[in-house]
Amino acid sequence: MLDIKAYSVHNKAMKVSETFIPTLREVPADAVIVSHRLMFRGALIRRLGNGLFSYLPLGLRAFRKVENIVREEMNRISSLEIKASVVVPGELWKESGRWTSMGDSLLRMKNRLNADLVLSPTAEEAFTAIVRDELSSYRQLPLSLYQINTKYRDEVRPRYGVMRGREFTMKDAYSYHADEESLDKTYNDMGRAYRRIFQRCGLTVIPVKADSGAMGGSGSEEFMVESDVGDNTLLLCKKCDYAANDEKAECKPDYSPRPSVEIAKRAAAETAAIEKIETPNIKTIEELCSFLNTEAKTFIKTLIYKAINIELDLKGAPGMDASAVKTKPVKEAFFAVLIRGDLDVNEVKLAAFLKAAEVSLAEHSDTVRLTETDIGFAGPVGLKNIPIIADFSVTAINDGVTGALQKDYHYKHVAYGRDFEAWQLTDIRLVKEGDHCPLCGGELYSKKGNELGHIFKLGYKYSDSMKLSFLDEKGKSVVPIMGCYGIGIDRTLASIIEEHHDEDGIIWPLSVAPYHVIIIPIKYEGQVKESSDSLMEELEKQGIEVLMDDRDERPGVKFKDADLIGIPYRVVIGEKNLTGDVPMVELKGRREKENQLVEIKKAAALLTEKVKSELAAF
Amino acid sequence: MLDIKAYSVHNKAMKVSETFIPTLREVPADAVIVSHRLMFRGALIRRLGNGLFSYLPLGLRAFRKVENIVREEMNRISSLEIKASVVVPGELWKESGRWTSMGDSLLRMKNRLNADLVLSPTAEEAFTAIVRDELSSYRQLPLSLYQINTKYRDEVRPRYGVMRGREFTMKDAYSYHADEESLDKTYNDMGRAYRRIFQRCGLTVIPVKADSGAMGGSGSEEFMVESDVGDNTLLLCKKCDYAANDEKAECKPDYSPRPSVEIAKRAAAETAAIEKIETPNIKTIEELCSFLNTEAKTFIKTLIYKAINIELDLKGAPGMDASAVKTKPVKEAFFAVLIRGDLDVNEVKLAAFLKAAEVSLAEHSDTVRLTETDIGFAGPVGLKNIPIIADFSVTAINDGVTGALQKDYHYKHVAYGRDFEAWQLTDIRLVKEGDHCPLCGGELYSKKGNELGHIFKLGYKYSDSMKLSFLDEKGKSVVPIMGCYGIGIDRTLASIIEEHHDEDGIIWPLSVAPYHVIIIPIKYEGQVKESSDSLMEELEKQGIEVLMDDRDERPGVKFKDADLIGIPYRVVIGEKNLTGDVPMVELKGRREKENQLVEIKKAAALLTEKVKSELAAF
Repeated sequence: MLDIKAYSVHNKAMKVSETFIPTLREVPADAVIVSHRLMFRGALIRRLGNGLFSYLPLGLRAFRKVENIVREEMNRISSLEIKASVVVPGELWKESGRWTSMGDSLLRMKNRLNADLVLSPTAEEAFTAIVRDELSSYRQLPLSLYQINTKYRDEVRPRYGVMRGREFTMKDAYSYHADEESLDKTYNDMGRAYRRIFQRCGLTVIPVKADSGAMGGSGSEEFMVESDVGDNTLLLCKKCDYAANDEKAECKPDYSPRPSVEIAKRAAAETAAIEKIETPNIKTIEELCSFLNTEAKTFIKTLIYKAINIELDLKGAPGMDASAVKTKPVKEAFFAVLIRGDLDVNEVKLAAFLKAAEVSLAEHSDTVRLTETDIGFAGPVGLKNIPIIADFSVTAINDGVTGALQKDYHYKHVAYGRDFEAWQLTDIRLVKEGDHCPLCGGELYSKKGNELGHIFKLGYKYSDSMKLSFLDEKGKSVVPIMGCYGIGIDRTLASIIEEHHDEDGIIWPLSVAPYHVIIIPIKYEGQVKESSDSLMEELEKQGIEVLMDDRDERPGVKFKDADLIGIPYRVVIGEKNLTGDVPMVELKGRREKENQLVEIKKAAALLTEKVKSELAAF
Repeated sequence: MLDIKAYSVHNKAMKVSETFIPTLREVPADAVIVSHRLMFRGALIRRLGNGLFSYLPLGLRAFRKVENIVREEMNRISSLEIKASVVVPGELWKESGRWTSMGDSLLRMKNRLNADLVLSPTAEEAFTAIVRDELSSYRQLPLSLYQINTKYRDEVRPRYGVMRGREFTMKDAYSYHADEESLDKTYNDMGRAYRRIFQRCGLTVIPVKADSGAMGGSGSEEFMVESDVGDNTLLLCKKCDYAANDEKAECKPDYSPRPSVEIAKRAAAETAAIEKIETPNIKTIEELCSFLNTEAKTFIKTLIYKAINIELDLKGAPGMDASAVKTKPVKEAFFAVLIRGDLDVNEVKLAAFLKAAEVSLAEHSDTVRLTETDIGFAGPVGLKNIPIIADFSVTAINDGVTGALQKDYHYKHVAYGRDFEAWQLTDIRLVKEGDHCPLCGGELYSKKGNELGHIFKLGYKYSDSMKLSFLDEKGKSVVPIMGCYGIGIDRTLASIIEEHHDEDGIIWPLSVAPYHVIIIPIKYEGQVKESSDSLMEELEKQGIEVLMDDRDERPGVKFKDADLIGIPYRVVIGEKNLTGDVPMVELKGRREKENQLVEIKKAAALLTEKVKSELAAF
């Protein structure tokens, strides 16, 4: 049994005059997205500093409801709630290596004794330190711990309100396992819990296979919501449910099967001999296409990349100094990267292939030095002293064009396998709208998305570096494998508003609405006051959360505010309807356009039934 | 009706094997107080760094219950819950002046853009900044807002576990009022709420009038618990309920009424003429008493104090440079402070009288310079160029002894009003055990205490410095008056353990117990397992929070752990009692010594009744 009562925050009915809901007509100039505007105007949040927000009473109620949904679903899958300190000794971060690798987004500070401290952006180190001291036997595993706690990330450019703040609240869970099978089970439980969480919050999420990025390890899923201002570009299939972050998206190869090196070589045998042609002052692919009257896809594009901290084994790679590649990571190296002329290089894929901390196009001077020619005339034929990495698309080119490593000259009739070969062949293609689904071949389209949650098989990164171990059944010391699982609470809340609003304001899903019902007495006095008070009491007794707008304001102002703050059900009580033969009130759902006249003596029962049955569906 | 589940503690029954309760036999060497030892041993908390603690599942459940009691009582008195950011722009603290005045206990940091940030120790600035932007009319007042949030204080010497940590959770409330009458009402509501909170937590608190200290303003009450390692010394009356922090305690004067200056002068007329006597090498009062064969209380002790940032008007005070005292605060000044020889000066009272940021005994060299004699021979007779502040006790001395401002000489037959007079007469006496109650004359005794909560009339300190204002009924701009009200959640939790434990472990009051009932199957298998499971389910259905020790451990180990973690009711299920004619289980309250045999089929109903009736009393 799970405590489902956690739906209600505190169900004492509130009068607007007794709470603090300073709604606004104007919005700050920097509030460019709907949720930011509505959270301000609806008095859910206020700004305290750059990327720093406070929740006012109405916002906090909705916030706690999201938190409670997350808490319930974590408890349901037997993750255990704990609470680590928000401030963590820098020592732990030095152990894990993130003290350095996190860069400037980690807020570091020193206390009065000059000790290094970290304001936690996530808690791998803290949780692992806690577990390390307690873990001794395989019988204690698996162990899944979570917290819902304040986090801080020193964003360069915080914006979009709580969607990308510096301080935020995150549910972060970490799991510890004796083996991968156990990790898989918890990882899958988390995936299901995340789907339930977002569904209960009324959110449409797109689960995507995400690149594992800087976190190391493999096996991860991001939970995205569509957003015009999303940080991520997603590629989705029109036919099946394939969805991927463009940083990691694959696509169906244009040729199937992909030409192997052998096939490429055979095809090359049919190709005319390579020929150097003069291409005066022609540097771009577009210029070349029009000059040669050909298409970009016959061109082999050659780009020089610099990579930093490379873990890939570079022994024997062309042009590499044997002593420089002996110890890993290799601090810095250059690569010639080939791709078909109409395609682009996905730098995240390239970095992942090289196991590099960072890749970027080489400086002009480095490119000139390594290709011994001007920019625009690089090509793989005759290129020495630098390893060539080619995208799979290049092997299919058996009669192509490429730079001749000489100013104002290109080669034509270039064939892979005959005129040049790559040191490594791999997939580094940036997949785009219009490419085809790697699963079903359907056309891919793209959306911008924001990440709300992320589940991730961490592997041994932290358990190794922080020296975690336990004794297995045979008494052997073993390092546990880890998973980590995050959800941004503030961002989830903002995303609910992004998905549920109209031009008048928020339209809360009942599960996270700050109140279920708002009662608006046209004028809070006499018979209207009495009827309003007694309806409020009746609803409160039924556990319905009620807000009553008892202010001495014009009805139009009250209606506008009720729409703005998005309470799901509105009851208007006015003298005219009360004094007929059968006293009536007006009832309206936030999404509905028309009022419904309801007998006042039936109103409480009707609303209770509506709220309870609707909540039960979440 | 209040029904708060903002942080629901979930009531799913838990098996020990499925949660994380790594109890310990050993305790860390620095755990010198009972609550610290038991919170460690009972797996409530773990240390993450110096003054930094994490709550494990069991500790967090108790923590949330304390939090919820505080939340319910705040809501009951119509304080509104909000959540400010924990990180606050340094700018706000510069506005209030606390950026400087808080000293090193304020943790300051800079973000990547070099902006100053503060990790909040309290939230006067943040709340006042929020209110400032919204406040316009008297109709919005009074406004009482609170949060339960993470705080950080950069303690020099964190110790005693969560009793004095660096990071901690505090409920802090701030109220804004149109006038003092309104502040008084909220202040009194808070006082009553605080009494209910501590009573519901099972705590015996001593409400004391506290010194207002560095916070400014007047009218404050501290809620103390007795503690051997308390920061505060309290003076309590054996006869009435007078209780005060020794920093501010008063006592019944030894003479009643206190001799006025006129009475002192009249008494002096009867006294023999002042006489200088040689007292070679006699510097202390003890030496002097034995030399003159007299008592310390005939002696007028003269101490030279240095004060910093003095707000008291010093115009016309002896020895003051007129230009130096023209603007306030006066940066630094010296004072001769007189008190009866058997009494001590209360420096907090002295600082409060001078309205000074700090007072301390003057350096040796300053004392010699100002008294123009050696240490030990200072006295008021003939003392010039320094203002004399005398405690009331001095006016009653009409035949006393004091230093003669000359090495190896004292005066005797000294009379106040005849031989010298003070610039100011006031109460600066340090009250001690054995002194008499200022209210009823009963004897005072002392206790060490720890502050759990503090309610405080802030006055205009923040509303003035941060420029808060509203328009009153006549349209006039008025500055609101403020109150602030804090409770340390961690410290309250630790104090509950300090008050409720025995040599075997914690004895939780039911209202904050992590679980209500622990079921201990002697061996979790066969019939015992079945009976244990079904009792667990029955209790869970009734809303009773159950922990079941399903581990394969010896009964003795399980009993020891159950006592250690202090679950209020224990049910032991063993084969022997189950297989009799009438299947029985053993039931025991944590405080009780003896088991009670109960029919298993009646156990659930009996326990439910016990738990519910006991909870209802909180």
